[in-house]
Parts: sequence; structure tokens; C-alpha cells
Amino acid sequence: MNETNSLQIEGRNAVLEALRAGKTIEKLFILDGCQDGPVNTIKREAKKHDLILKFVDKTFLDRMSEEGKHQGVIAIAAAYKYFEVEDILEEARSKNEPPFIIILDEIEDPHNLGAIIRTANMAGAHGVIIPKNRAVGLTATVARTSAGALNFTKVCKVTNIANTIDQLKKEGLWFVCADMDGEIMYSQNLTGPIGLVIGNEGKGVGRLVKEKCDFITAIPTRGNIDSLNASVAAGVLAFEIVRQRLK
Amino acid sequence: MNETNSLQIEGRNAVLEALRAGKTIEKLFILDGCQDGPVNTIKREAKKHDLILKFVDKTFLDRMSEEGKHQGVIAIAAAYKYFEVEDILEEARSKNEPPFIIILDEIEDPHNLGAIIRTANMAGAHGVIIPKNRAVGLTATVARTSAGALNFTKVCKVTNIANTIDQLKKEGLWFVCADMDGEIMYSQNLTGPIGLVIGNEGKGVGRLVKEKCDFITAIPTRGNIDSLNASVAAGVLAFEIVRQRLK
Repeated sequence: MNETNSLQIEGRNAVLEALRAGKTIEKLFILDGCQDGPVNTIKREAKKHDLILKFVDKTFLDRMSEEGKHQGVIAIAAAYKYFEVEDILEEARSKNEPPFIIILDEIEDPHNLGAIIRTANMAGAHGVIIPKNRAVGLTATVARTSAGALNFTKVCKVTNIANTIDQLKKEGLWFVCADMDGEIMYSQNLTGPIGLVIGNEGKGVGRLVKEKCDFITAIPTRGNIDSLNASVAAGVLAFEIVRQRLK
Repeated sequence: MNETNSLQIEGRNAVLEALRAGKTIEKLFILDGCQDGPVNTIKREAKKHDLILKFVDKTFLDRMSEEGKHQGVIAIAAAYKYFEVEDILEEARSKNEPPFIIILDEIEDPHNLGAIIRTANMAGAHGVIIPKNRAVGLTATVARTSAGALNFTKVCKVTNIANTIDQLKKEGLWFVCADMDGEIMYSQNLTGPIGLVIGNEGKGVGRLVKEKCDFITAIPTRGNIDSLNASVAAGVLAFEIVRQRLK
């Protein structure tokens, strides 16, 4: 479930303290049906922070527990701190560059997220935006796979990707999403302030998010299978943006 | 050690049968110091097939064993069959295309190997060449990560990458290796019969192999860290070759 001991917090007091200390909690597992005082306090605190609660049975918690003293509550804390969308825009402003942001629509595999953060850093993107729900967060595996990039590249977690796209359009960004049915990337203008949207490993970019995008772009593939690995596709597209910006 | 039960073969008879049946064995673990008849027969058979033997102690074998009956011998069989270099050249000829081969100099991570085989397929490369030693082979994880590409794209395993490059040069191929100190890829001619060499995740391309390459090429990176993920770098370079071939 969890990659390092330091990220898993077990027991009512420990979890409540972590919440009150403002620690970033990725997920909160609570014993289903449990209604007593301390657990309800935890639920209230979790609600304040807009956290995702998962109600699970005792067997699940017992198996997940590292210390065997979960008391019906286990929290997974983020290994790294998240930034705000404004921090990413400020990063671009401070470098006097048009914003270049990579938006991940529900990437689930921590190796992909880590590799994409690494790519974002090396391609000169100003930040990465991920959704709060149905996606992997900044776990220890992501940090390791990013090969140090997580110390430099700002990652921001938002409640709703489609709303964030709307908000960033007001800042002048154009959005391009990767999809096999798009126009070949070489014939599109990918310069200027841009948001590159990469979809889920299996399902691709969600319909709502796709509708928000200004362009659909495609990598000129010709193989026997469906698609590239998500982090490879992100890399190929990010460096097509780099190529066009260099010209 | 091993990803699915079907790939690990334990015990003297089972291993000997597998060898004699011509099954592709990735690795052969033998109890160090063991000199009795059947084990010597296995060593002789292994030598005939030019296999890598690893001499290990009993604790290692006990821990690795899934059935608890290893009798001093455990073999790891390949999940997939390997092709010959000639098969890859034939693939290019049959499509009437200049050969495009991806050569991996000691890739260790099965996720990277799987993603690169997937990229090779989608970029229209005719095959992938990996070394016999100090590299991951076609394990179950590689097969899964390739997302089916392993059923279409030919993978070939060679004893010595540098020798294979020499052999392929006689067939008219040019070799380009990826390295940060190379010339930016956009200013190089990457069309024609080409071998793209990708190095190890940590050490990059080995000195001997690098010396055999005709060009050194670089992705125009600008981040705070050292390098891209190996499978992302392979993807970016493979599709730069595709871009130049499309022009």
C-alpha cells in the first residue's frame, strides 16, 4: 500500500495530529461503520481539508497496518508538498517565458508520474498539474522515479481539471491534448503559452477535459498496438513543443 | 526474483529437460561448489547454449525457491522467444524500408525495456537488440509493460553489442547514440538505415559501444537534473527519426 514507513500514519491520535498540523494527506482509510467520537472528529477535520475518505473493512486495515495499531484509521501522507497553480504561473513570469504546463488527466502509475515530472523539468515546463481524485499523488515511488526533479519542478493538485483549464485560459494559455485522432503534431503551432494535456494510461483523456482543449494533437505512430506508454507520449509531445519553441 | 510461476524452473530433472527441449533460459542459478553428476550434466548443457551461470549459496536458492525442491538448481526461462539479428533485417527488407533498429546497452529496468519495445513498435522500428549480460531480458513484467508490442516487434539478444554494431555496419547501417554531450538531434541527419543506441539508466552508453557509434546525438534539455528517463529519451529520439523520415 505504502512505500516508506514515514508516509503511513496509523491510529486515531497520530492521524488527528497530522491533520491539525496541516500535513498533506493523500488518502484516509477509515473503518466502515465506525461512529465513535474520535473517529467522527477525524472525519470532520478531513472534511475541512477536502480530503478523500475511503471506508474499508477491518481485514483491509489489518493487512495494510505496519504497526498493528490502526484503531480503525490509517492515513497516507504526501512525501512532498504541493504548490498552487499561481506558483506555476509565477515560475514562468520569473523566467520571462510563456507558460508551459503539463496537465495529467488521471495518471495512475507512479512510475509514469515520476517520469513525466522528470520530463517536465528537462523540457523546461514550469509545472505539472494533477487531479485530486482517481490519480496517483506524490508518493515515495514518484519521488524516486522523478530522479530529483520533484525538488525543482512544481506539482499542483486540483479538484477539477476542466475548471483549472478554464481558469488558465483566462491567463492566456492554449490547451492541446494528446489523442490518436488528432492532427499530426508537426503541422500544429505549439508555441506560445501552452498547456499539454496527457490522459489516463488506459482510457486516455476524459471527454469533459478533451472538450475544453483548443487542439487535439497526435504523434505519428504506425505500429500494431493502440498507444505509446503515457510517459513516453508526454516526452515526445513535450519535446515537440521544445523543438517548435527553439525555432 | 521471478514474476510468474511458469517462468521459474526448479530441480535437476526439470531444468535439464528444459535445456534439452531448447527452452530459452535467461539465467541459471547453481549451488556453488556442487560437483555431482546431474549438476555437471546441466553445466555442460548450459555451456552448449552459451548460458549465463550464477553460482550462489544454499540460502539464496532456498529463499528464491517457490516449491522448496530446487536440489541446487533453479532456472529462469524467458517468457518470450528471441529472434536473430538477421530476422530484424529481413523485417525491414520485407517492408521495403531502410532498417531502423533500437539497440539497448544494458537497460536494467523491465518497465523501461517494455516501454521501449512498445515505442519501437509504434515508431515503426524493425526490431530491438539487447545484450545477453548485465541487462533485463524478456520477463513477464517486460511483456506486460510492452502492452502487446512483444507479439509484433522482434527482440534479439546478442553476446556483444559492439560486435553486433560492427556486423550491422557491413549491412549499411549508421549508428547514433544518445548522450548529453552530443550534437542537438535536429541538426543531424537521422534518415537512412539507422541503429539508435540507448544506454544504461545510470551509466549511459558504455565507452566501447560509444566509440563504435558514428554520431552522438543529444536531446535539447535544460532542466536542473542529469537526464531523462531511459524509455522517455528513447521515445523522443525514435520520434525525431520518424519526423526526419516523414519529411
